[in-house]
Amino acid sequence: MQIEKHKVDELNHQLSAKHTHQFEHIAADVNNVEGVLTKLGAFNVAIPSWALGTGGTRFGRFSGGGEPRSLEEKIEDVGVIHALNKSSSSISLHIPWDIPENATAMNVLAAQHGLHFDAVNSNTFQDQKDQKLSYKFGSLHHTDKAVRKQAIEHNIEVIKYGVQLNSKALSVWLSDGSNFPGQLNFRKAFQNTLESLQEIYEALPDDWKVWVEYKPYEPNFYSTTIGDWGQSYLLASKLGPKASTLVDLGHHLQGTNIEQIVSILLMENKLAGFHFNDSKYGDDDLTVGSINPYQLFLIFNELVEGMDARGMNHATDLGWMIDASHNVKDPVEDLLQSVQAIKIAYAQALIVDKAALVAAQNNNDVTLAQEILQQAYRTDVRPLVAEASLRNGGSLDPVSAYRRLSVREQLISERGLKTVATGL
Amino acid sequence: MQIEKHKVDELNHQLSAKHTHQFEHIAADVNNVEGVLTKLGAFNVAIPSWALGTGGTRFGRFSGGGEPRSLEEKIEDVGVIHALNKSSSSISLHIPWDIPENATAMNVLAAQHGLHFDAVNSNTFQDQKDQKLSYKFGSLHHTDKAVRKQAIEHNIEVIKYGVQLNSKALSVWLSDGSNFPGQLNFRKAFQNTLESLQEIYEALPDDWKVWVEYKPYEPNFYSTTIGDWGQSYLLASKLGPKASTLVDLGHHLQGTNIEQIVSILLMENKLAGFHFNDSKYGDDDLTVGSINPYQLFLIFNELVEGMDARGMNHATDLGWMIDASHNVKDPVEDLLQSVQAIKIAYAQALIVDKAALVAAQNNNDVTLAQEILQQAYRTDVRPLVAEASLRNGGSLDPVSAYRRLSVREQLISERGLKTVATGL
Amino acid sequence: MQIEKHKVDELNHQLSAKHTHQFEHIAADVNNVEGVLTKLGAFNVAIPSWALGTGGTRFGRFSGGGEPRSLEEKIEDVGVIHALNKSSSSISLHIPWDIPENATAMNVLAAQHGLHFDAVNSNTFQDQKDQKLSYKFGSLHHTDKAVRKQAIEHNIEVIKYGVQLNSKALSVWLSDGSNFPGQLNFRKAFQNTLESLQEIYEALPDDWKVWVEYKPYEPNFYSTTIGDWGQSYLLASKLGPKASTLVDLGHHLQGTNIEQIVSILLMENKLAGFHFNDSKYGDDDLTVGSINPYQLFLIFNELVEGMDARGMNHATDLGWMIDASHNVKDPVEDLLQSVQAIKIAYAQALIVDKAALVAAQNNNDVTLAQEILQQAYRTDVRPLVAEASLRNGGSLDPVSAYRRLSVREQLISERGLKTVATGL
Amino acid sequence: MQIEKHKVDELNHQLSAKHTHQFEHIAADVNNVEGVLTKLGAFNVAIPSWALGTGGTRFGRFSGGGEPRSLEEKIEDVGVIHALNKSSSSISLHIPWDIPENATAMNVLAAQHGLHFDAVNSNTFQDQKDQKLSYKFGSLHHTDKAVRKQAIEHNIEVIKYGVQLNSKALSVWLSDGSNFPGQLNFRKAFQNTLESLQEIYEALPDDWKVWVEYKPYEPNFYSTTIGDWGQSYLLASKLGPKASTLVDLGHHLQGTNIEQIVSILLMENKLAGFHFNDSKYGDDDLTVGSINPYQLFLIFNELVEGMDARGMNHATDLGWMIDASHNVKDPVEDLLQSVQAIKIAYAQALIVDKAALVAAQNNNDVTLAQEILQQAYRTDVRPLVAEASLRNGGSLDPVSAYRRLSVREQLISERGLKTVATGL
Repeated sequence: MQIEKHKVDELNHQLSAKHTHQFEHIAADVNNVEGVLTKLGAFNVAIPSWALGTGGTRFGRFSGGGEPRSLEEKIEDVGVIHALNKSSSSISLHIPWDIPENATAMNVLAAQHGLHFDAVNSNTFQDQKDQKLSYKFGSLHHTDKAVRKQAIEHNIEVIKYGVQLNSKALSVWLSDGSNFPGQLNFRKAFQNTLESLQEIYEALPDDWKVWVEYKPYEPNFYSTTIGDWGQSYLLASKLGPKASTLVDLGHHLQGTNIEQIVSILLMENKLAGFHFNDSKYGDDDLTVGSINPYQLFLIFNELVEGMDARGMNHATDLGWMIDASHNVKDPVEDLLQSVQAIKIAYAQALIVDKAALVAAQNNNDVTLAQEILQQAYRTDVRPLVAEASLRNGGSLDPVSAYRRLSVREQLISERGLKTVATGL
Repeated sequence: MQIEKHKVDELNHQLSAKHTHQFEHIAADVNNVEGVLTKLGAFNVAIPSWALGTGGTRFGRFSGGGEPRSLEEKIEDVGVIHALNKSSSSISLHIPWDIPENATAMNVLAAQHGLHFDAVNSNTFQDQKDQKLSYKFGSLHHTDKAVRKQAIEHNIEVIKYGVQLNSKALSVWLSDGSNFPGQLNFRKAFQNTLESLQEIYEALPDDWKVWVEYKPYEPNFYSTTIGDWGQSYLLASKLGPKASTLVDLGHHLQGTNIEQIVSILLMENKLAGFHFNDSKYGDDDLTVGSINPYQLFLIFNELVEGMDARGMNHATDLGWMIDASHNVKDPVEDLLQSVQAIKIAYAQALIVDKAALVAAQNNNDVTLAQEILQQAYRTDVRPLVAEASLRNGGSLDPVSAYRRLSVREQLISERGLKTVATGL
Repeated sequence: MQIEKHKVDELNHQLSAKHTHQFEHIAADVNNVEGVLTKLGAFNVAIPSWALGTGGTRFGRFSGGGEPRSLEEKIEDVGVIHALNKSSSSISLHIPWDIPENATAMNVLAAQHGLHFDAVNSNTFQDQKDQKLSYKFGSLHHTDKAVRKQAIEHNIEVIKYGVQLNSKALSVWLSDGSNFPGQLNFRKAFQNTLESLQEIYEALPDDWKVWVEYKPYEPNFYSTTIGDWGQSYLLASKLGPKASTLVDLGHHLQGTNIEQIVSILLMENKLAGFHFNDSKYGDDDLTVGSINPYQLFLIFNELVEGMDARGMNHATDLGWMIDASHNVKDPVEDLLQSVQAIKIAYAQALIVDKAALVAAQNNNDVTLAQEILQQAYRTDVRPLVAEASLRNGGSLDPVSAYRRLSVREQLISERGLKTVATGL
Repeated sequence: MQIEKHKVDELNHQLSAKHTHQFEHIAADVNNVEGVLTKLGAFNVAIPSWALGTGGTRFGRFSGGGEPRSLEEKIEDVGVIHALNKSSSSISLHIPWDIPENATAMNVLAAQHGLHFDAVNSNTFQDQKDQKLSYKFGSLHHTDKAVRKQAIEHNIEVIKYGVQLNSKALSVWLSDGSNFPGQLNFRKAFQNTLESLQEIYEALPDDWKVWVEYKPYEPNFYSTTIGDWGQSYLLASKLGPKASTLVDLGHHLQGTNIEQIVSILLMENKLAGFHFNDSKYGDDDLTVGSINPYQLFLIFNELVEGMDARGMNHATDLGWMIDASHNVKDPVEDLLQSVQAIKIAYAQALIVDKAALVAAQNNNDVTLAQEILQQAYRTDVRPLVAEASLRNGGSLDPVSAYRRLSVREQLISERGLKTVATGL
């Protein structure tokens, strides 16, 4: 299915008077509102192919209806999201869950929805049917060179798929680690990982990047071989300029100051981008902005400040992706809520009075620095986000539009009530 | 399969001289060594039926070979464990994963292995095929009375199975909770849970107990309706004397002083027993004693002190069970290691110089109190554990015996290399 | 010093046009805006006497200037706060830091500032000069009956001071606990605490309450004798109807769902009230709303829902207090920011569409439930808070007014640059 | 005071028969027992000058008696410790708490006790009387160049003191950080810190090192400018070969796998050494080995493996220090317990069957790897530690000897009951 633009326009029309009133109200208070709208309008967050179906936990999965049964249907779903929010213009594939048998056809289909392909993701945390060697004890860090070789080749194959799709980055998340003290030699595991990544790095096309994710625990519960930003940074430094560190918001110990890590990585020119989600405990993979929206704003505050300091293009110089699991919500609604939350945080960060903040920081005027940040955070920027969407042809209120257009009902009628998408 | 006693004896015989030497060495230093051995000999830890297969995470499962394909084979596996350690004389079933179609036959089979059935466990955290209503949004706490009713009836059915197996307790773990703020009304969820449990309580036979587990998070990541010991205690108090609180070691926020909770629950006569495991982060379900063995000792120190203060029988007045997931180890080996770790901690707690500790506590002699505890903890009590096993006809070194007897190889040859047991 | 109302009015006048515009904008969107304003106007948060000076850590304290040198000057400072925000009409004393030598004079002085005295706080976590017995190893839980007796008598003395000040509650926070395994017998410590509290309870006047605080750690780092809400609840239940549980937001392990605890305690009619602050790690005692304002909103959402369900008066039926430490901010500014953050969270909670939320919850419409909560949270309610303040004669923007009126400069000129207030 | 060797010998004599029996028992089971004893005998842990008095928290301090009133008396106290355990041959000074007015005299005095001076520590986390500029908002990271300059000069002064004492390393712990979002620009704070450290680095004598500590929080509760090992490593890398990372065991978020960090830093040749202590929550500064002794063993297991892999000298190639706060124990007893715990963990690590472990790791035999580690950990190695002490002329049981020799009583009679040592 594909959402017809006139239907979105109709819904917008019904909200138009109210929106205009709200927008004008805030526009009067915001400096350079057109600049803010331009940046918001240019901002896109990739949708991962594995997040279009209902997720689960080790205790079970409660599937919803109308889940995409193929890569084509996943592209359709992202098309729906993008038609509504005009901020999800790309899809990030996960191999082997979504092998594009016919890359040309996929490129055409994506283009029909206004989409392109973002970073491709390898998977060595599961065994696939007919796989020769098992990843039970890891992949790129494995003690057995043959297993490492198999995992390296898988990554190189993923790059090849990516090249066909005009993707420009390989995103590597390894679950390699250990469950028990003594299981691993940490040093050798690190060195094996480095050597494996070096082989993959060698296979990268000139204009490609490799993004190295880190995570402290799960699915291994004693150690993870790329366990924190420092270890990822160390690998990325040794690999070279095409390698950098990907930050997944849920991949931190409780209490970690993520925004500080973001600032440091930006300073070192080693920040690849983000996997957005939210969490209260571990890698809970909840809707972005559903648990601690202020933290999300603080991260964007560092991003805007740090990217501007380097003269980076907000829209294109980092990788923006969602990585969440939707256990109790309609996945499309969850993704729509997530993108809205990201754009709200971004808008709030854009309207921070930077000059005043710098002055307050230089004076160690802590009270004032907080007032400045919270002045931006407490502002209701939703009309700015809505206006940016409207100007791009999107919906003023994507979640509500999705419901009013009965999209899920149509998907169920097309695909059936009992479908299970590939993914977690 | 069944382990022949003479083979265990043979292996013991080879270790006999060394064991005797070690045992005599420590026996000379321990007060009332016979009393300690008697208690160790009487101590048993139930094996859960779901822990005999390889576990997994939401990211995948890497199965091993020779996993039990039926309840009969699970009983066999527990028989193997018990034949080796003589401390695993019971099995705790999980319904509907292990419905005993023929209870009489199961009782006979269990008895042949020297086993009986411990607490039965209900399962309302997954949907079963052909189940009428879904537990996607919870069971006993559900907003819909019909779902609650279905879950209540399931629990009552579990009791019925248990009665046929001469079990005496229903163990209830609910995953009921919420993933997002706003999803639940906490108060109504609690009250629904209480009402549901009251109906189940009414169905308990006179000599039965109901054990109410708590857990802060997973599989729900914002709230769990029975989230901590306080909430479980509140329910158990309102239910009545047959209800008490079950402590799973992994079901706590990081930093929780579990031993203090144990002491308080014992004081209030509301401690049901334990699900033993170990963890570094969350409910990691690792081998008992593999991450923080000192904490395990401290828990047993409270148990021995608190049970003695109430004149309780260590062996029979609480429920002792393992609840772990074996993702990278042979499940039987993991269970054997777990039971050994528990017995070591128990032995250490038994040899604490209680009179000296009480005196040090009364004098606030903190240095000395620590010395007294660590004197027991640092003692190598393995010969005591081995001797207790020997006297009961078990192995001096169960893990090693299991390997030397090539048990897994036999199980694989009997059951095949690609089997997957029911469970997580 | 005392802030003259006409100066506040003048500053308000300068902001008047802008405020009116903002207020009218939001008032048009809020149901029953007058009801909301009435509730906001009636809402007051007590200021603790110990929070008017610069706080410190175990590593040092960096004092500011013009700190109050006496109880009289502390009352003045609270007077300043209340004159600005009209929401801090009471002061909570800490004995022995602030013994009111002349209660009548203090009552008169407080009344001159429009203030009264809230709960009185005892202190048995420090030794005072010339104190007979030490609290090094605890107070109400102490192994030595003589120490317990001394601590009980201190608490009764605090009640006596409170009676003279027309206070109606004793707030008890005990640091009693242990630093090392073995130091304490948890059960006996709990029982000693209970017995001690019972004696204090007996001394309460008929119309008084006793509020029992809990805290997991600090200043003891292995156990705290009243370590969590469950233990406080247990004590409060055994004590009787005058006893209830006080929630300090910083007194929880990381990841604790505080709003759920609030809901449960309200349900059981055992919630005493709050010590507000914010934190990222432990009991950081930061400005309310500075780290996780969404959590604060969620707590108020439970409060409004739960108090309304019991027909409670928001303004008077719970104890509202700040408990923070101001290490790098002017304490008065920190307190003004804190009260604003509380009122914002309260206002957001008041405008939640309750009927819609209940419906979404009953339908398990998780997406919609989140939309409803965030609709309220994302609304810029500051004009509502400002209007409520204005109607009570307070400032539209208290922090800014405090600065523009050069209050700190006046305090320094009156009191000197090197003053250190009693407190932490 | 100074402990006379013959008194230690006498006490040893009383324990001699029992010790010999225990030692011979274990010696028979340990490979290369003489090699183990040699390493244990050569191993020393520095005592920090600030840890000889009773510590405190922000809530108060409960001093003990006989605390050292001067640097001379602190040296005496370390002399006592070293006389008893023969493993504390050095003292680590903290400037300005312990300025050696007469370095020659101090060197002589130290030598009389068999001691020398270890790393010197700077202090820019407190303001000293008559200090020109305040460190309220940090030191080496400060926005004001003048404050940074003052802090740099202080560090250079500390080096100068150290040179006079034949110290060879400067240990830098910065509390620099922020309490609130917005207070700091993280990048500029990092860069200021780097520049400041570069100036200090330039002032290092050729044979000196600078050790850069990290800590996630406290006394700042939102960010710390050197917050984790990654940030410390980044600084140390940019500074050069004389700079490396110091690991304080308490300076990690909960759940951090410290042993993995140790392994990585060793691999990168950037591990400076340790500040030993134990903790359950944050930087609790409890007695080493009192909370999680298995973790301590696992750290030593990595140290032995990693140092051997690099051909490092265990005794001299890393800095070994205690950093703890003794709030409820006699500081000397706490330190004696700490050093014993360290030596026990080291002994356990030394007797790990390395070849078997490597084989198990290469086979991914997780069960066996755990058995091998726990075989060493469960061994009662205390007789090895005692024997090593005995051979060096120390006590078989230092804590007990300290008590039997009534050392504290003598210190009190010499120094008085109410003395307060400088330090935290």
